[in-house]
Amino acid sequence: MLVAPRNPLNIGAAARAMSNFGFLKLRVVNPYEVAYREAKSAVNASAVLNDSEQTETVAEAVGDCTLVVGTTSIGHRQLQHPLRRLEYGGKLIRQHLDGGGTVALLFGSEKFGLGNEDMAHCHWLIRIPTRDEHESMNLGQAVAVCLYELIRDASAARRKAEPVEEARAEDLERFSTILLELLEVSGYTNPRTAVSTEAKVRRIIRRLNMPGNDSQQWAGMLRQILWKIKGRD
Amino acid sequence: MLVAPRNPLNIGAAARAMSNFGFLKLRVVNPYEVAYREAKSAVNASAVLNDSEQTETVAEAVGDCTLVVGTTSIGHRQLQHPLRRLEYGGKLIRQHLDGGGTVALLFGSEKFGLGNEDMAHCHWLIRIPTRDEHESMNLGQAVAVCLYELIRDASAARRKAEPVEEARAEDLERFSTILLELLEVSGYTNPRTAVSTEAKVRRIIRRLNMPGNDSQQWAGMLRQILWKIKGRD
Repeated sequence: MLVAPRNPLNIGAAARAMSNFGFLKLRVVNPYEVAYREAKSAVNASAVLNDSEQTETVAEAVGDCTLVVGTTSIGHRQLQHPLRRLEYGGKLIRQHLDGGGTVALLFGSEKFGLGNEDMAHCHWLIRIPTRDEHESMNLGQAVAVCLYELIRDASAARRKAEPVEEARAEDLERFSTILLELLEVSGYTNPRTAVSTEAKVRRIIRRLNMPGNDSQQWAGMLRQILWKIKGRD
Repeated sequence: MLVAPRNPLNIGAAARAMSNFGFLKLRVVNPYEVAYREAKSAVNASAVLNDSEQTETVAEAVGDCTLVVGTTSIGHRQLQHPLRRLEYGGKLIRQHLDGGGTVALLFGSEKFGLGNEDMAHCHWLIRIPTRDEHESMNLGQAVAVCLYELIRDASAARRKAEPVEEARAEDLERFSTILLELLEVSGYTNPRTAVSTEAKVRRIIRRLNMPGNDSQQWAGMLRQILWKIKGRD
């Protein structure tokens, strides 16, 4: 829910982030009417914005919700509410939603944030962990970050690296053979140290972690160069 | 890094999110000049934007970086790169930064995203897990969400509930006593069932989980009401 927003671009951006992340019910409390109308009439206005409801008071807007959470960038005022970091508050909100509850997430106006009267309707508050030197976020961006935290899938972060089809030893060996011939033909290899050069080249090739799909192409490139050099002799 | 951005508001918003989350080095590749100039001259332009560097090519912009990660909203084109969800890609980026590496995070233009030539400079790509029906995010919001993932503190989510100073039993008992007297005086309590009412009232008071700080105030309010009623008799 947006409380007293004043900038049509921010209203539109908030609605867009909601649509991106699948939160489709926007309520706008006591907006600056011109801005609200302008945002809704924008060419790219999202369905979320068009379906949004307008209320005059926070009390009306949160009436059917079982948990009301406000957002703030702290610092500038003494808070009478428990204030939680987004990471932790987000978890509590998800738990409440999983339990079948309905949650209102309140964002204040661009200039002043939520007022004390707005906060009085909240069970608790969250803050996005911005740095002290520049706490206050743009409204549309704050909405995007909060909603991302809510849809974020922690298990996705623990996922193992996707299986990269590494090149097989025979692919690497074919590549090594061609490169070694190329180095010999081009005069890079000193015949006296050829054996140690060969081992060195094999090692640096193995350290490339070449994907299987690419090994063919590498071999092809070198073969072409080899062909060119030999043709010149 | 922003590649070919066209909207001054988006450039400004990207810089603001960087400042919010403590990423202070912005490079802008081949921007729409008018937009870049307008963004820099905005009244509220952040220091990040003023200190930003402009380059003509992606190659120049990423030159000193040890890991180059592109962003995309997939779907509309076949990708030749490993594509990772933000949760997992963000973890890899943090690990790289912790290891002393320098990471470039590339965002494409508002309209087309990163081109294939831009992506060719990337080691891999990330996508923000938006819903299929509305994948593409606003540029400034995408920057904010990605950077939030990078500064996000997973341990903050595992934090236990902050210790709420619950009311002590004696506070609750004082409150109970006043409420019971008030109920008796006001005629709520039926003398025949007074004992069971008393137990019921004690139970519902204990279920309130009243914070210690508030119990005094509750008692005060009831005491005042009691005084008023008694005064009338």
